[in-house]
Amino acid sequence: MATLGELGEAAVLSRIFPRLPAAATTLVGPGDDAAVLRAPDGRFVVTTDTMIEGPDFRMAWSTPHDLGWKAAATNLADVAAMGAVPTALVVAIAAPPETDISVLEGLADGLRGACEAMAPGCGVVGGDLSSSSVFTIAVTAFGDLQGRAPVLRSGARPGDVLAVSGPLDLAARGLALLFERGVVDGIPDAELAAALRGEFPDEVDAQLAPTPPLADGRAAALAGATAMLDVSDGLAIDARRIADASGVQLDLDSAAVGSAASLTGGEAHALLATFPADAALPSGFRAIGRVEAGRGVTVDGQPYDERGGWDPYSDWDGDR
Amino acid sequence: MATLGELGEAAVLSRIFPRLPAAATTLVGPGDDAAVLRAPDGRFVVTTDTMIEGPDFRMAWSTPHDLGWKAAATNLADVAAMGAVPTALVVAIAAPPETDISVLEGLADGLRGACEAMAPGCGVVGGDLSSSSVFTIAVTAFGDLQGRAPVLRSGARPGDVLAVSGPLDLAARGLALLFERGVVDGIPDAELAAALRGEFPDEVDAQLAPTPPLADGRAAALAGATAMLDVSDGLAIDARRIADASGVQLDLDSAAVGSAASLTGGEAHALLATFPADAALPSGFRAIGRVEAGRGVTVDGQPYDERGGWDPYSDWDGDR
Repeated sequence: MATLGELGEAAVLSRIFPRLPAAATTLVGPGDDAAVLRAPDGRFVVTTDTMIEGPDFRMAWSTPHDLGWKAAATNLADVAAMGAVPTALVVAIAAPPETDISVLEGLADGLRGACEAMAPGCGVVGGDLSSSSVFTIAVTAFGDLQGRAPVLRSGARPGDVLAVSGPLDLAARGLALLFERGVVDGIPDAELAAALRGEFPDEVDAQLAPTPPLADGRAAALAGATAMLDVSDGLAIDARRIADASGVQLDLDSAAVGSAASLTGGEAHALLATFPADAALPSGFRAIGRVEAGRGVTVDGQPYDERGGWDPYSDWDGDR
Repeated sequence: MATLGELGEAAVLSRIFPRLPAAATTLVGPGDDAAVLRAPDGRFVVTTDTMIEGPDFRMAWSTPHDLGWKAAATNLADVAAMGAVPTALVVAIAAPPETDISVLEGLADGLRGACEAMAPGCGVVGGDLSSSSVFTIAVTAFGDLQGRAPVLRSGARPGDVLAVSGPLDLAARGLALLFERGVVDGIPDAELAAALRGEFPDEVDAQLAPTPPLADGRAAALAGATAMLDVSDGLAIDARRIADASGVQLDLDSAAVGSAASLTGGEAHALLATFPADAALPSGFRAIGRVEAGRGVTVDGQPYDERGGWDPYSDWDGDR
């Protein structure tokens, strides 16, 4: 066991690099001033998302492997939501000097595991290691559209079918379980979290190490999806984003949506897409509503304006 | 005046977006799950670097404009060091909820100012906003090789000329001045720093808002540079990186290098490159040594092994 501060940057990097997944599109990999990647169709998709200890994860609940896995999965879901195939990640980590090297090794293993499981050929092509008192993981992810047009939020048309791939409420149920039964006097507890994970593996895994249906992004694009996004802040909020961007109304079918928690649960990372009425939904997608003329989101034809979802500034109580 | 926590994410973003520079290569800009950029020659250059309050900057010394400027400049220098033209940035910011919106507005203005001054056509195509008790700026930068081969660290050959574009010691002298005369009882002081900046504008600007010679990266590639990097950790350390990667020895001419501080000063962001002996050095570059058979770095033919430079874990005293 040794800390990052004891080892120094060069030794830390030499222990992490071999564990990272390689990217098939790499022309120049880690080790120079920058990486060079192939962009076969003359374009590339890029998105960035950060995970911060406190608002986004607790070390007592998440294993290092979970952190790497989730950082990859959530960013790659945004790539998939464009209809692209994930190709590569760059990963900037800021960690306290007293962090044990095993934490970064586990994080690297989680990045590799997520890429291998959900996006074969996708790898880590660069990164940065800094010192901070708050453990921070900033990932930027890339994708290849393979010659297709990107699937934007703005393409939904009245008459389209609204469909989703992936569970909507598991991650939120996992988080609720952790807050209810994974704390001692309000403090996240590793043993309780591990026991909960044994009892509710689907819910807790969906929260701590999600497996979004990344391959379904490309499938949706091939099936003619007119709009798509990654459900990160809850179905109702994210459906409204498609409605607003497309200038249409989305009507959700409550029976198809299922639980009320499915409307508001964040961090689902399901893919929400609209398809022409005559399109065959790709396997993985299930219809949960339809696109109509109008504005905003309705449920069973009734206006739905209840706020639900996650705002990093409004929702996070730093003292919690 | 209003804080990020009072405004919430959507309102903050709506105030920042209009201030950000647009990128000429943008096909899909901010607002969807991901951006889509053109990669005209079927490749793109990517690098990432993070600035953390404490080890990398002090709010008392740096204006918000400085922070945006430096975050852009340091990342774009890595792009230029590949011989590429900077095209775009994505910017992930983590800030305390009590941060005033004017800080992010100033930071956005600094990103725009740096792009306009050093890399016209380069812009911000995406980002992420999170809550953290430690102000953190994680930038990922992109570049276009315009059909050329990237200039790696590994291409220097015996007989080449070693040359540099940009000052080597100004930034380190600026930092030394700030630590010597910009503190009260060891605490960074805004008024003292502002006064120092008036007295030593070149030195303090080089540290707080550097202007690396980004266009010289492309010029070096066109002139046939065989190896290149961005001097971030000090000339001696970074010269050794070229020597190690290329399997050669770099001999520095002390008279051409100038001050001893030029050998060890970090954060210069000068471009260090090797050129064939018969190449005409592009304007901006000055010869400071030559490439020889052997290993490591020598100065006037004498071995130079003194350690100099910056390690984020070994060098940062968090209490300082």
